[in-house]
Amino acid sequence: MKIALAQLDYTIADINGNRTKIIAAIQEAKNNGAELIVFSELAVCGYPPDDLLDYPHFIEACNDSLKSIAAACDNITAIVGCPIVNEDEKGRRLYNSACVLSNGQLTQVVNKTLLPTYDVFSESRYFESNDEYKIVEVNNLKIALTICEDLWNEMDSFDYEYNPVQQLMVHQPNIIINISASPFNIGKHKARLNVLKRHAIASGLNLIYLNQTGVHTDLIFDGRSTVLNGNGEILMELSAFAEELSYYETNIDSNALSISEEENETEVTYEALVYGLKEYFNKMGFKKAVLGSSGGIDSAVVQALASAAIGAENVTAILMPSEFSTTGSVTDAEKLSIKLGNPYHILPIENIYQSFTNGLHPLFEGTAFNIAEENLQARSRAVLLMAISNKFGNILLNTSNKSEMSVGYTTLYGDMCGSLSVIGDVFKTKVYELAAYINRNDELIPNAIIQKAPSAELRHNQKDSDSLPEYPILDDILRQYVELQMSAENIIESGHDQAVVERVIRLVNNSEYKRFQAPPILRISNKSFGRGRIIPLVSKW
Amino acid sequence: MKIALAQLDYTIADINGNRTKIIAAIQEAKNNGAELIVFSELAVCGYPPDDLLDYPHFIEACNDSLKSIAAACDNITAIVGCPIVNEDEKGRRLYNSACVLSNGQLTQVVNKTLLPTYDVFSESRYFESNDEYKIVEVNNLKIALTICEDLWNEMDSFDYEYNPVQQLMVHQPNIIINISASPFNIGKHKARLNVLKRHAIASGLNLIYLNQTGVHTDLIFDGRSTVLNGNGEILMELSAFAEELSYYETNIDSNALSISEEENETEVTYEALVYGLKEYFNKMGFKKAVLGSSGGIDSAVVQALASAAIGAENVTAILMPSEFSTTGSVTDAEKLSIKLGNPYHILPIENIYQSFTNGLHPLFEGTAFNIAEENLQARSRAVLLMAISNKFGNILLNTSNKSEMSVGYTTLYGDMCGSLSVIGDVFKTKVYELAAYINRNDELIPNAIIQKAPSAELRHNQKDSDSLPEYPILDDILRQYVELQMSAENIIESGHDQAVVERVIRLVNNSEYKRFQAPPILRISNKSFGRGRIIPLVSKW
Repeated sequence: MKIALAQLDYTIADINGNRTKIIAAIQEAKNNGAELIVFSELAVCGYPPDDLLDYPHFIEACNDSLKSIAAACDNITAIVGCPIVNEDEKGRRLYNSACVLSNGQLTQVVNKTLLPTYDVFSESRYFESNDEYKIVEVNNLKIALTICEDLWNEMDSFDYEYNPVQQLMVHQPNIIINISASPFNIGKHKARLNVLKRHAIASGLNLIYLNQTGVHTDLIFDGRSTVLNGNGEILMELSAFAEELSYYETNIDSNALSISEEENETEVTYEALVYGLKEYFNKMGFKKAVLGSSGGIDSAVVQALASAAIGAENVTAILMPSEFSTTGSVTDAEKLSIKLGNPYHILPIENIYQSFTNGLHPLFEGTAFNIAEENLQARSRAVLLMAISNKFGNILLNTSNKSEMSVGYTTLYGDMCGSLSVIGDVFKTKVYELAAYINRNDELIPNAIIQKAPSAELRHNQKDSDSLPEYPILDDILRQYVELQMSAENIIESGHDQAVVERVIRLVNNSEYKRFQAPPILRISNKSFGRGRIIPLVSKW
Repeated sequence: MKIALAQLDYTIADINGNRTKIIAAIQEAKNNGAELIVFSELAVCGYPPDDLLDYPHFIEACNDSLKSIAAACDNITAIVGCPIVNEDEKGRRLYNSACVLSNGQLTQVVNKTLLPTYDVFSESRYFESNDEYKIVEVNNLKIALTICEDLWNEMDSFDYEYNPVQQLMVHQPNIIINISASPFNIGKHKARLNVLKRHAIASGLNLIYLNQTGVHTDLIFDGRSTVLNGNGEILMELSAFAEELSYYETNIDSNALSISEEENETEVTYEALVYGLKEYFNKMGFKKAVLGSSGGIDSAVVQALASAAIGAENVTAILMPSEFSTTGSVTDAEKLSIKLGNPYHILPIENIYQSFTNGLHPLFEGTAFNIAEENLQARSRAVLLMAISNKFGNILLNTSNKSEMSVGYTTLYGDMCGSLSVIGDVFKTKVYELAAYINRNDELIPNAIIQKAPSAELRHNQKDSDSLPEYPILDDILRQYVELQMSAENIIESGHDQAVVERVIRLVNNSEYKRFQAPPILRISNKSFGRGRIIPLVSKW
């Protein structure tokens, strides 16, 4: 049987647009002689639809759309993800379902059993869990049809009570199909292949894994849909970070591909972030970006990523020197914009800063220069950037990295502003690696920017290292505390100084209130700030 | 049997502080001859601990604390809420448990069955659900012990598969005890009493309901722990919005109290918001607040609420007139501060605004005054307020109401700034009712402020009604769309103009990006913006 794998990029809640895309793929697959076409999880509405699922008319619109899609299914069967109403009196009102469409009808519904509810996932918020295991039969092919998490019965932090694939095996299927909406993070590709192989080998069956692509604010979906044989060998792998419609023939013996499971971490981070930016702009209908270009490495890397994503001519750099800016910062930032080909403007903030300190003089008279004056500068810059954004429709990109976001070495309503945080999930040490990668063929980012000591330049001769440990130490502590949920005790045991560890943890805990108001962050790690990490603001931890 | 009801206010993650408070209550109850003392859900760590539950050393600290509490239990039994590790290989790693402590030991653990995962609740994110039903016996009293949601098997939007109380009834208990952490919203008291009565009447048993108090950022816990008899009559009700340690005697026939279930909505809103503010400041260790006082009703109401909560002398009002401010605005705001007894300062923003437009002149030359210049004013004010906050440690209060938060009639990084949004869950029409309530004995808020037409005063002769429908119409549409999840079609059927409804819904949907970066909002409705309403930013809805 010829099976079409439709790895597509849906827009959440664009039910008409998604339907058009799905029906076009069905037509193309039919023209190419496919008997079955497989779409990803919740394809009808896009994943994750979040609390739009609480709106009954959203669900009605999804189900109306499903009927139209079914009407396009003659001489082909489609498997499409859609939220379906639970008709029982008891239990949550919806299922996360794989719908089988053929002969113009919805012929079968398979519901998701394992509902991820951790990190960025909250499916138990909406869906009832499946508890009956049925096989789907398409033209004599017996399919063990599962949905995303249904394959992930064994987890790092806990195992589920059920193994849906095992339950389905008693019906002796010929193939396993999994429709998925599995977001990217570094290391996910390998983890995913391990899960797929485990099931393929345990069942001895071929396995088709179908993932979506696209970017849904913070979440980047990488695609890489895969077909494996019963030895766990990869027969087919679709593109990363791109739509693709491809075909797999069950009756033709395919050779196993030799695909490396190892990724170059820096390369894939670069690709994910460029894709993330590009897709965010596409989906929102935005064309142009603006950012503050400080002459530091963070804004330089974001400027280069944005130029790659939406075109250098669409990225405007604003240089906003103050009395504390070094001459080097301005000339380096100018060189960067010239090299990348970005329009740029120099708007000194001295007069603005002065007008604020004059205005505040009646209250501030006799007080010493402190964090208030430092933040005034960062916030004056944010006001300028937002004014430009409001006037010309350029979208402000946030340039904070994960290290400073972690310890609160940022100004709320200052450098924390922006529609999207591009590198808020990238530690400072990794920002350097990104810069080196960006410069791999050509010195796009001037070496002076990469080599200078990091500084916020909010007072004279300020250096990040005045207030923070050196970044390799800081980032290692942060990785252990934020991403691995380790205790101070264990981090100290791993070889870090006690006082430093305790101070860093205190800084992280005391900055929750800032992160609460941060922009959405493109997620590339398995523990990004944002929806995947919810910490009480009023607490003593 | 004399049972102590410990309705206390815990600080999340302050495991030592909570233990001290719990042990002090145990001592006092013992001294008063109680045989049993009941604490609320997750009392050991405070509710909701959110993702702190993902930190293994947090769980260890909770369980160490539980042991110390047990050690204080001689000649008394305590029921205390605590997260307990699930020792099974399968399932989530924790239970949300009611721990029975006596003779210095943890003698029994009852786990929560129904795990709320909707609106502000996300317990399935952390906890495994209980599936065995055991009775707790304390000095021959057979207790059907349940935890919060376990009583809420019948819901408005769905019913749970299980009814834990019914399961426990087969063991013929003598009493039902429910330990809870149930947040306040308008109407919740009545809904809660209905649930309690249903169980008391169905079982014919007395029911002790024990809730926590305190404010955990956005969530306000009102206490109002209750004892009912088997006829569903109220025998005892503890204070609202205050800690209390009281005693109930099972052997003494009590008379039913006649307590009104109806609340004065405006009065309870006022009490909840004052309590919310006061507790937020207490828990965070803050003393002083600052806010922008525009001469409008929103900031006036927040100023009055804050004065009631933390003392008038601790609330500093900053008046920041621009060329677009009417004289009345400044004099009204001055009168308000004088009447309330708040220190205030007038800091005109004209020079600051001018310095921004001068600085932006090279880019803005030839463009017309528009939203960019309007926002410049709102953001200049925010920068001044944050500078004062940073310099003197005053906490900035946000004064946006729910109507403007809904439709995005606010400036991000401008009037949307603040550590806490005080009236972000109060529609504008309700803000007027609050103002009337605040003025019930004395004209604290000058009538001129209440009577003037609402205006942002960001350009000449601006009125809210230029851009928005009249507030009674707007608020009714918003209530139906945001709180009741109704479709445009149904809202129009309820009697609203189609074009207005469609425009309002579009404004709500297009403002998700602003609300994403809003401060935490004191929650008083059953659908507040924030953690209880998660809507995709990148979507077409």
